[in-house]
Amino acid sequence: MRVLIVMAMHAEAKPVVRELGLKPVETPPWAAPVPMRLWQGQVGANEVDLVVNGQDSETGLDLIGTQAATASTMLGCEAFTPDLVVSAGTCGGFAKRGGSIGKVYLATDRVWYHDRRVPIPGFDLMARGGYPVTDFPEIGRRLGLKPGVVSTGDSLDLSDEDSKRIESVGAHAKEMEAAAVAWVAGLFGARFTALKSVTDIVDGPHPPEEEFFENLNQATENLAAKLVGFINELGSTA
Amino acid sequence: MRVLIVMAMHAEAKPVVRELGLKPVETPPWAAPVPMRLWQGQVGANEVDLVVNGQDSETGLDLIGTQAATASTMLGCEAFTPDLVVSAGTCGGFAKRGGSIGKVYLATDRVWYHDRRVPIPGFDLMARGGYPVTDFPEIGRRLGLKPGVVSTGDSLDLSDEDSKRIESVGAHAKEMEAAAVAWVAGLFGARFTALKSVTDIVDGPHPPEEEFFENLNQATENLAAKLVGFINELGSTA
Repeated sequence: MRVLIVMAMHAEAKPVVRELGLKPVETPPWAAPVPMRLWQGQVGANEVDLVVNGQDSETGLDLIGTQAATASTMLGCEAFTPDLVVSAGTCGGFAKRGGSIGKVYLATDRVWYHDRRVPIPGFDLMARGGYPVTDFPEIGRRLGLKPGVVSTGDSLDLSDEDSKRIESVGAHAKEMEAAAVAWVAGLFGARFTALKSVTDIVDGPHPPEEEFFENLNQATENLAAKLVGFINELGSTA
Repeated sequence: MRVLIVMAMHAEAKPVVRELGLKPVETPPWAAPVPMRLWQGQVGANEVDLVVNGQDSETGLDLIGTQAATASTMLGCEAFTPDLVVSAGTCGGFAKRGGSIGKVYLATDRVWYHDRRVPIPGFDLMARGGYPVTDFPEIGRRLGLKPGVVSTGDSLDLSDEDSKRIESVGAHAKEMEAAAVAWVAGLFGARFTALKSVTDIVDGPHPPEEEFFENLNQATENLAAKLVGFINELGSTA
């Protein structure tokens, strides 16, 4: 199977690159000025391509959010025609739905947007996303991954409007890329899933910008360990 | 000059195709399952490529918003390496800043996001966009185009959070694609501008979903007339 992994931040990707034993590709097969970076490798029976957003030229910071995720996934799908696309990264979890720091969710059901509101019949549905997720219940059980509903928006904070939509789908993971990755995967006829590791508790006492960096290392190490397991299991069952 | 025009909806593009005399390209130079559509033609001294998002497979409706705009602009930039990228379409205007139905704005200053909130130093700036716009003041004057600040978000309605950010930049045009188009244009080193025609008054008495379809025809006819003028003037001055 050919698996495309899409990640936003270099700090999130670093342990994944190490654990999967991927090699950097100095000259990726896309236009030179595009900041997206590529790592590749054979993992068990699978060919793995990892695309990471790269940096914003203005601030030097890692690009995040749905526009960069769209671009990364497009480039990866165009270049490698993957069978499966995995959006991997960190997320906010919800204490009221069992979320805790470092827990890793495997996406289930559908993946939603919580910050696209278009109150015109038909467009309202399209705006919400709701793209299909391929379930891997057996692999999830073997690896101890909790099945989670993932919801995507371009903000780290939580507005009242966003909260309403997150609650309406009972999301376990609030993050900033998955729905965009799923949409592009769907355009190319690839299957989609997501692995998301909790860095902050959305309904806890601390603002996400405080918890995020504090827990980033633990969350990304857990993510890398689970992602290696997931890719290896894919080889044995898919 | 090679000019890439990016538009969201087919209804917006139809008068533009007609007025510019563009021809449909049945097999665009990108992967077949991707819904984006292409028209091309020579307009004065310029080669024009028009990419329109195409339809959502689930609802059959035209794709709108920043993810589709990112994809369309990527495909256009990869295929044609344009000198100038133009985000063309409709927008909400503001009565308090002189907006009226059918008025066409030519982008000025910078183009912003109003719905990406990341309260971490550096990331807060990146989230707001603020991508540079190439000013064409002479052409604007000759065509009677009002210079306007454009602000982008993935919602047709206006939340309090979005409103704060729109007011902080004094936006004349509230729409759903321009910042994403500008970001991708910037990745490829292309210049960027936008022409946006008012379909609804954000600070007026009617919700945008009522005004939008009522005024779509007038707004798009005005847009097409101004866009033809703009492209022709480019040939004579750029």
